[in-house]
Amino acid sequence: MEFKFQDGLIPAVIQDRKSGKVLMLGYMNEDAYKQTMTSGFVTFFSRSRQKLWTKGETSGHRLLVKEIRVDCDSDALLIQADLAGPGCCHLGYKSCFFRKLTPDGEEIILAREFDPSKVYGDTEQESQT
Amino acid sequence: MEFKFQDGLIPAVIQDRKSGKVLMLGYMNEDAYKQTMTSGFVTFFSRSRQKLWTKGETSGHRLLVKEIRVDCDSDALLIQADLAGPGCCHLGYKSCFFRKLTPDGEEIILAREFDPSKVYGDTEQESQT
Repeated sequence: MEFKFQDGLIPAVIQDRKSGKVLMLGYMNEDAYKQTMTSGFVTFFSRSRQKLWTKGETSGHRLLVKEIRVDCDSDALLIQADLAGPGCCHLGYKSCFFRKLTPDGEEIILAREFDPSKVYGDTEQESQT
Repeated sequence: MEFKFQDGLIPAVIQDRKSGKVLMLGYMNEDAYKQTMTSGFVTFFSRSRQKLWTKGETSGHRLLVKEIRVDCDSDALLIQADLAGPGCCHLGYKSCFFRKLTPDGEEIILAREFDPSKVYGDTEQESQT
């Protein structure tokens, strides 16, 4: 299987297997993809930290891989996963997509599932996709 | 609303509003986003053709925008849309994510919804996200 990496990265959309909600979008390099496939836990390459990053390594909110798909152009991945924990977003929401955009601005449309300061404390947060 | 564009682009995940299926991932520049917001039809910036591209301009399989969300880092969009037509993918499938990856290779897991040669003919295809 040959992917088309762009600058060494491919975007991966994470979808909650049970609810169908899109939880987040991250980027994988070849090593992150291999580690995801072999470990069974979603692992990204953090562009800001320039290193592999297994989602949930701080919070425990890991993403257990159930299925990996690739698109027609082989330049995007869609991963069905089970989320271990109350929320995927480092700000305490189920999904990182918790803001709706309108011509007038933005609106928060999800409720917080957990208090991020209790989960992440002073540790490096997991936001840097 | 300020997005974090990367090289002028932001990825946009398109999700079918009714079924929850993820249909495709494309990229928008600022003009594509504005046109999407004002026209109500998903419009991308084609990286290979280097121009705006309203999904469905050839096939008629347009994506009617129902909701636009942005993620916590403001560097990815999630768009809920209604698909006008039998399939979103230029290869005839409902979703561009029609191949499942396994350690042994890939497997097609969706059925074709239409014959692409009848829809696209000899025209430039809509694959170039």
